[in-house]
Amino acid sequence: MNDTKENNDIKYLTPKITAPKGFLSGGLHSGVKKYKKDLSIIYSKTPALCSAVYTKNVVKAPPLWWCEKLTKNNEKIQAIVINSGNANACTGQKGYEDALVMAKTAADMLSIPQNSVMVTSTGVIGVFLPIEKIKEGIKNLVPLLNDDDESADNCARGILTTDTFKKEITLEIEIKNTKVTISGIAKGSGMIHPNMATMLNFITTDVNIEKELLDEAFKSNIDDSFNMITVDGETSTNDMAVILANGMANNPIINKKDEDFEKFKKALFIVTRELAKDIVKDGEGASKFIECTVKGAKTKKDARVLVKAILNSSLVKTAFFGEDANWGRVISAMGATEIDFDPDKVTIDFKNEKGIIRLYENGTPVIFDEDFALKILKEKEIKILIQINEGDFEATGWGCDLSYDYVKINAEYRS
Amino acid sequence: MNDTKENNDIKYLTPKITAPKGFLSGGLHSGVKKYKKDLSIIYSKTPALCSAVYTKNVVKAPPLWWCEKLTKNNEKIQAIVINSGNANACTGQKGYEDALVMAKTAADMLSIPQNSVMVTSTGVIGVFLPIEKIKEGIKNLVPLLNDDDESADNCARGILTTDTFKKEITLEIEIKNTKVTISGIAKGSGMIHPNMATMLNFITTDVNIEKELLDEAFKSNIDDSFNMITVDGETSTNDMAVILANGMANNPIINKKDEDFEKFKKALFIVTRELAKDIVKDGEGASKFIECTVKGAKTKKDARVLVKAILNSSLVKTAFFGEDANWGRVISAMGATEIDFDPDKVTIDFKNEKGIIRLYENGTPVIFDEDFALKILKEKEIKILIQINEGDFEATGWGCDLSYDYVKINAEYRS
Repeated sequence: MNDTKENNDIKYLTPKITAPKGFLSGGLHSGVKKYKKDLSIIYSKTPALCSAVYTKNVVKAPPLWWCEKLTKNNEKIQAIVINSGNANACTGQKGYEDALVMAKTAADMLSIPQNSVMVTSTGVIGVFLPIEKIKEGIKNLVPLLNDDDESADNCARGILTTDTFKKEITLEIEIKNTKVTISGIAKGSGMIHPNMATMLNFITTDVNIEKELLDEAFKSNIDDSFNMITVDGETSTNDMAVILANGMANNPIINKKDEDFEKFKKALFIVTRELAKDIVKDGEGASKFIECTVKGAKTKKDARVLVKAILNSSLVKTAFFGEDANWGRVISAMGATEIDFDPDKVTIDFKNEKGIIRLYENGTPVIFDEDFALKILKEKEIKILIQINEGDFEATGWGCDLSYDYVKINAEYRS
Repeated sequence: MNDTKENNDIKYLTPKITAPKGFLSGGLHSGVKKYKKDLSIIYSKTPALCSAVYTKNVVKAPPLWWCEKLTKNNEKIQAIVINSGNANACTGQKGYEDALVMAKTAADMLSIPQNSVMVTSTGVIGVFLPIEKIKEGIKNLVPLLNDDDESADNCARGILTTDTFKKEITLEIEIKNTKVTISGIAKGSGMIHPNMATMLNFITTDVNIEKELLDEAFKSNIDDSFNMITVDGETSTNDMAVILANGMANNPIINKKDEDFEKFKKALFIVTRELAKDIVKDGEGASKFIECTVKGAKTKKDARVLVKAILNSSLVKTAFFGEDANWGRVISAMGATEIDFDPDKVTIDFKNEKGIIRLYENGTPVIFDEDFALKILKEKEIKILIQINEGDFEATGWGCDLSYDYVKINAEYRS
């Protein structure tokens, strides 16, 4: 977090999904995986407003059918049950029934309506859940739900598959002199077992806000955070991001687009952006973290498309793995989109704490110092800055290089 | 070529770009590359009708500016000059002037108008051509142009960069008892030096045909051949495909969409398809050749989009490298497109000469024999057959796996 300006009114707390008031959580090993934790629950003492976004993949996993139904009906949510190790995807009607069993079991144990329980799964595709083990696990887990550090740690670990680290963040802001807290945990792109689902994000907050404004703050942030990261350009069958807002901070309700709304939206954006960046940093076999900004686009959408085209290009990604200042692949990837821009007006810089180097300017290569370029490229984090001088819009996205390890991880047999 | 039905009226001859009447060719080492041949010319004794398609990349190499101008003006073409080793791309006005020098030098030596000489380049991006060497090379090459086997071999080699084999084909058909010949050579996806242009295709024929019908036959074939292959999903700054038809077979002119037109179009399709397949087989670091067919789509476009999404998926490609019968990645890649289809109506088979195996049917995984699946996947060539049961359209495309070698080849430094 170098951008101090954005943090003036924002305090970073030790990350904990239950830092906002009124939330409990927990996680344990139920037996879906061999040894690691594979079952987590996030619980709100009072029914919470809920906004959620789901994968656009036509092939959606059955648990998402259930969650989407709850979202469509504007149900208040009190619990989210997550299992890892098995995605319950491509499992048809039986898979849907298993998802319902998970919701029902948790609802009964918690004495809340089934319609207030979301369910999601991540792991191998095309295998039925070991539903008896999960039922047993839910029954064991509910009595353990707590707001202590250990339970929050268990919860953050129980949603992981092959992630190499926990992804969590907690921020505190003040709304009219009342403390409001936002926490998030995420599960990233661990596809070391083929067919793992890619991205799950769970955000809790005690903010008191109207539903429409919660939806707007959450959804507008998604396009600049979770939707601007890429590891291999694939959308999984199980991707989802959800926020629960239980109002227990008791701040005067945010019911219009005023300063308070903007403050909350800004803090929520940081939560989603930092979780998104962590997901990329833990990308499969990634050895470099790449931030790409395109400025001067005619529209926001143009800028986003260009950023994603660059970050998704296998040629660009392998060049970064090879620490090669290969601006030609960057501009070629931009050109291969359907965005209309004039190559003669483009500049391309690479940048990080080692310095900044201009590689391409106004349609022509710049003679540059290869040693200096290598010094920048040898770092773990590199920024690509592009100015296309067509308009006033910009976008930033995050990606990683393409390494031998990506191939190795993803070429391994299912087994 | 197993499809004997398509070949009833088509004879395969020993491949030679000058097999059609009235064409000469040649190739030599001019000094752009260190040792290998790097300059080729294809020449027609009489001005030929010309159809051409160019890369859709916004960042086009200057030689293509010249060629596109000739195409737009419907110029008859008598010579194509091709250098390899340097793409003359991202070189701006100076690059354009160099392309004009190449056209002018060849035109003067051949005593033909400059407007009848196409020019194209393939190789490193962002470096000016060693134009004096190329001028000298053209002057040396023109007197050597010939229709013998050796000259044709030199010509096919002079357009290559890091391709591991020549790509060439020659077919003969009969149009109203007159022999008509079609030949083609191609340069593939050799990106071992980063920033190499991807795909060049040159087709010669002595057919006598009206310009509009030549255009239609060529362009309709492109969408099912060159536009249906992928190595890494990238479109280069220099891609082009061109056909010259000089009419010297003297067949009664094809001037309507009759049986003769269909016969010519069919043969031309085989030429473009086989060159396209050879380009993929020589893909960078490719160890498997994958043919993918999607049937039962609502539109031809839907079928094409689905085929390309599968063949472009890094997850699908690494699974094939790992010899993993991973249907989950196939259906997930399909689902991530914006094509509307019902996963519950989909079947997925893998197939080759070892047998055929069904992996997914009507929305559910099929229990299959992993040993048998591995037997199929261990082969060099594998077909993916998909039926989506939404309509009557189908498409086929060709791709390759994603191997360690792809990463190695593309991560190497420019130098």
